[in-house]
Parts: sequence; structure tokens; C-alpha cells
Amino acid sequence: MTAHVAGGDLSRLRQLNADAVVRVLRDEGPRTLTELARLVGLSRASTEDVVQELLEVGWVAEVGPAAGGVGRPARRYRFRADAGQLLGVDVGGHKVLAVVTDLDGTVLHSRQLPVTPELGRSERLAAVDAVVDRVLRAAGLTGDRLWGAGVATTGLVDGSGRVMLSEALAEWTGVDLAGHLRDRVGGPVRVENDCKVAALAETWRGVARHASDMVFILAGWRTGAGLIVGGRLHRGFGNAAGEIGALPAAGWQRAPGHLRHAGDVFAAARTGDKAALTAVRRYVKDLAQGISALVLTLDPELVVIGGGFSRSADVFLEPLRAELDRWCLRTPEIRVSTLADEGVALGAAKLALDLSAGRSYTRSRN
Amino acid sequence: MTAHVAGGDLSRLRQLNADAVVRVLRDEGPRTLTELARLVGLSRASTEDVVQELLEVGWVAEVGPAAGGVGRPARRYRFRADAGQLLGVDVGGHKVLAVVTDLDGTVLHSRQLPVTPELGRSERLAAVDAVVDRVLRAAGLTGDRLWGAGVATTGLVDGSGRVMLSEALAEWTGVDLAGHLRDRVGGPVRVENDCKVAALAETWRGVARHASDMVFILAGWRTGAGLIVGGRLHRGFGNAAGEIGALPAAGWQRAPGHLRHAGDVFAAARTGDKAALTAVRRYVKDLAQGISALVLTLDPELVVIGGGFSRSADVFLEPLRAELDRWCLRTPEIRVSTLADEGVALGAAKLALDLSAGRSYTRSRN
Repeated sequence: MTAHVAGGDLSRLRQLNADAVVRVLRDEGPRTLTELARLVGLSRASTEDVVQELLEVGWVAEVGPAAGGVGRPARRYRFRADAGQLLGVDVGGHKVLAVVTDLDGTVLHSRQLPVTPELGRSERLAAVDAVVDRVLRAAGLTGDRLWGAGVATTGLVDGSGRVMLSEALAEWTGVDLAGHLRDRVGGPVRVENDCKVAALAETWRGVARHASDMVFILAGWRTGAGLIVGGRLHRGFGNAAGEIGALPAAGWQRAPGHLRHAGDVFAAARTGDKAALTAVRRYVKDLAQGISALVLTLDPELVVIGGGFSRSADVFLEPLRAELDRWCLRTPEIRVSTLADEGVALGAAKLALDLSAGRSYTRSRN
Repeated sequence: MTAHVAGGDLSRLRQLNADAVVRVLRDEGPRTLTELARLVGLSRASTEDVVQELLEVGWVAEVGPAAGGVGRPARRYRFRADAGQLLGVDVGGHKVLAVVTDLDGTVLHSRQLPVTPELGRSERLAAVDAVVDRVLRAAGLTGDRLWGAGVATTGLVDGSGRVMLSEALAEWTGVDLAGHLRDRVGGPVRVENDCKVAALAETWRGVARHASDMVFILAGWRTGAGLIVGGRLHRGFGNAAGEIGALPAAGWQRAPGHLRHAGDVFAAARTGDKAALTAVRRYVKDLAQGISALVLTLDPELVVIGGGFSRSADVFLEPLRAELDRWCLRTPEIRVSTLADEGVALGAAKLALDLSAGRSYTRSRN
């Protein structure tokens, strides 16, 4: 069946179909047109149109046919993760970390510099510039060769990439981070709150790849949250979603304070140290109030625990689950992030990918 | 520009386009093909295809041309709200209310019976049957003539229309409300929690028509919430979203208790009665904790206050706003529902519409 369809409609449809084809090839590996058509739910003819377009713009490449078949072997296609590179930058209180990744989120190069929360604005920006220079040099890239750049930072960020409010970093409120980076790397730059992009990273490369509704918890000396709703990052009307920690009753303002302890409190708790165990129990009780508020609000499929303390999740995961069971009508599955320190930078790279994806299907690049 | 497009893709595209055309005609009134094409962003030829299909299934009708033009006047089309009827039923603690509406949510007939929270299961179901019978009789309809039926009730409802948990109504946990109604009215029946559908009603016919992220608060002797995220009702993975009231720290378990007072506490507060003013202030403080948790989580564009107490919102709206300002990073706009007692039943009718909409474009009815 064929039909008359106009240009505007077609480009919308094409985008949907191209997204679907790219997703299947990325998640399932190389496929023939027939297989692709079945997996995506398109006709073979439409699938061929889409693949042809993706070949032209470089997102997809042909691979040799699978061995062992009879008759003329069908052509197979693969997602070209190497078609472009993304820059992701994590501007935090204690480190500035930049990664260059391929389109599939594999980290190709990574560089970081230690900083402090007290560092002034221009010093922190200088650290950003230095780290970005180094990672681009390691990758043999100039900024204008990137498909896009994403930056994540602590605090509330507005839609234009300016920091609206940062309580954790000195002289950081008001900085135009997108403008600063754009001057250095050229091309599209997007800036977002670090907890939000860490949530994004979990759905891209982490433990939440198949979750459509997920709450990400940054558990560290700061506590924060990022939300995925309906498969998308939920930013909120004023880009301030996930800020439950601002409510004193949520317990997060007090939670990490319980863990001030001589030495590594989690290590001490592992050895049965009573004071350390009490500290962890108090931390968990407060942490669980805020998580319960998020869970009761959203009823997500999954809660992911990330941030610095997630390395010690073995110590507090079971008490946390027990505490959530007390308050939640339905305690979701809880998983611990495996992205370690690179989660936020990786999420920033995903921001860059999302920024570039829409245009890439419709223009030629090489 | 025309192109080869296959059947599966087309039906998806058609659905999108039909939705868009129906929405424009409903919101903007009668339009010519040329106007429609511009408003929907389709080609004229595609618009004509869509309108032809909607004419066939009865969602759209032709109207006389506008007076006063020169040359041959163009045909105009209107949304046919009278093409079908929907049944919405609100099964609450104190009343059972059923409405028959047109496809645009205009209430054509409404019937109700008083009940009590203590009423047993079979008595409450008998009240439902009686109210449904009466409203259908008033409408001159039999159940099989309805496009669909929606039911809203207090408690958690699962995807099959069974009440998973109801603390407010006696013998209500476990009742198969969808099955019960289906036996009586035939055709598709959908059941949902009353706060969730009240949120839906606000986006359909209420004060949240243009909000894509909204928190609805049921403020009454029970306190509850329903969430609209990205323009859609957010149900949650286990259909338990919006249940922030289960968390003691959210204050909702305690909030209405402050209002136990001889006579109408809101009326007394209006006259300056000190005890009543104190009671309202305490109520607002507790109510605001839970609302702040929802707002800080979701950062919605809008908070809508509905439920029985919303009729007295003049007494507590300003103190509530002040209290939210204390806790929220960004206090959203707050509006008071205008749907009065029919909001939940109307939302139930919207459930029925959503249930029927997908099929209605592709089958013939009259």
C-alpha cells in the first residue's frame, strides 16, 4: 500500500523511523534489512529508505554478510558509533573531568583536574579550559570536529546554559557556562545540572537502560536526584525537578553530616565498629525520607544509587531497602550505579548527542 | 512532494494527524481545509485525507460556509462533540455520582446517591448500579450505545480495573470494579484512582487545559494528588504515583484533623474567629509540606487545588502560597478548580474517551 504524504509529515515520520532503526542496530548489533524491518515494525521498503538515508549521513555502515548461509547472502548493517565524537564535561566541587566518547558512549579519552568548592569563578573556568584542551589533544580533535559538547555542573541551570543558583560552588551563580564553552569548542553546547545528567547516563550506558521511569540518587557529601519519566529526562518547568533535598523534612540536608567520622566510616562499619554502624544507620534513615518522597510521588520502576558513596553501597543498601519498605507503598527495584566517577561526564556527552541527533539525519557529514 | 510509505507507518502517522485535526477543531472552532492545514502544519492534500476519514467515522461534520466572502465560499468543518456519549462514574466515600457527557466533556446528564464510607461492598455496588441506570435512562441510552465508560474510586487501582488497596472505603480492597461495570454497560470500561482522574479532568475541561506539567491536589477530609507529566496522566510503574500522603513527614495524614471544629471552620475563619484561624493555619502548614514535596520533585508549571475544601480556597490560598514560598525553590502558579463536585466523574468520562479514541478513527460508527 502506498499513499500520498506531504513533506512536513514525512520528515516527522522519518525522524521517528530513523530513531527506531538506530536504536535497534545499537542495541541488537548488525542486522539485515528483513530483520530490521521486523524489529522496527516497518515495511521492508520503508526500512530500506531509512537505512539509505542513515548510510548517507554516516550513522550506519554496511558490514560483510554473516557466514554459512545458502544462496546470495543478504547485506547487513551496523550502527557506526565511530561516526562522530562527543565531549562531556563534569564541573564539580572537587574535580573537573572531561571525556571524549563515541556516539555509543564508549569513553575514548578522559582527563581530570582536582579543584575545591572554594575556588573562584575564573580559576574554575580556567580548570575547565585546561581539562577540555587536554582531552581534545589526547583525542587528536579540535572543538569544531566534535558533534557536540555537554557540560554538567552543580546547581540549578537555566535553559540557556547559565547557572541560576549554586550553593555548593563559590562565585558560580550567574556564570554563563554554555557561552564560555561555546567560545572554546565552537558548535552546539548544552549545560545541565549534574544529578540530571547522571540519571541520563544510567539510561544510556548504566543500569537503567531499559527503565522508562527511574529515580537516580546522587549519594555523596552532597545528596541530589535526577528523574527519568516516560523514558526522558524530566527537567521541570523551571529546570528545577528533583530538588526534594531543599525540603528539610526530606532529611537530605542533615543526612551526610552523620557520616563525619575519623577515617572511612563505611570501612569502619564493615569491621563492625559500633559508632560507624550508628552513623550509617542515621544516614540511611535521613536519606530514605527524601527517596521515599520521590518514590511515593513518581512510583518509578527503578531507583539507582550513584555518587561517591555508591562504592560503599554494600554497607547501606540493605538497611536502605528496609527503611524504604517502611514508608513506600511499593518499594521499587534498587540498583547501584556502575559508572563510577565518570557517570556525570558521560551524561554530559549524552546531552551533546541528543543535541546533535535531530540534525544529523538530515544533513551530510563525513 | 509525495513518497512511498507503507501501511504500518501510515496508520501511525494518520493517528497523529487525526489527533491534531480533532484538537484544532475542538479548541478553535470550525475551520476551512486551508486554515486547518496551516494550524496543524500539514499539506492541504494530507489534511483533506484526514478530514475525509474523520467525516466517515463521525468525529467531524461539514458546516455552512462563513457569510460575507467573495467567490465560491470554502467548506468549513467542525468537531462533532455529539458523535458519541461517554459515561463517567465517581465512586466515593460520601456519594456515587454518574455523568453522561458528549465527546467534548459537556455534562449532558448527572445523577447521584449519597453513601457512607462504612457501607459494605455489595451495597456500594448496588448504589453504583442504581446511579448508572438512572443516568443512562435520563440520557435515553443503553450501555451498549456508549463509546466507553470510566470509573474513578478512592484507593489504588491496578491496570485491570481492580481495587488493590482502599483504606477509606469498607470492604473495597479487591473489588473488580471494571468487571462489575462491564457486565452492566457492555463495551470498554476503565477504572482509575479518583485523584488521578480529577487531574485528567482539569487538563480536559478545567483550569489546566494548557499545562503540560501539573500537580492536582484533592483537598478535603482526605488529601490526595494526581500528576500530569509531559501532557499525560502519570500513573507510575505500579499505578501508585502521587501517593506522597503515605509519608508521615508530608503532613497529609494529620492535616484535615486540624479542621475538626464546631460548625464550618472556613466560614468561622472568614468572620475572624481566632480558633478557626489557628485551625486553618495549622492545616495549611501540614498541607504545604506534602505539596512542597511534590513541587520540589516535579517542578510543575501549575498546582490546581480541588476537592471539597477548594470551595473555601479564598480562606487558605494566600497562606498556602506563602507557606509554599518558604519551601519551594520556585513556587508554581496555583489555581483553584472550577469543576466543583463533578471533577472526578468528568475525569472518569475522559478515561472513557481515551479508551475509545484510538479505535474510533479506524472504524465506522453512527
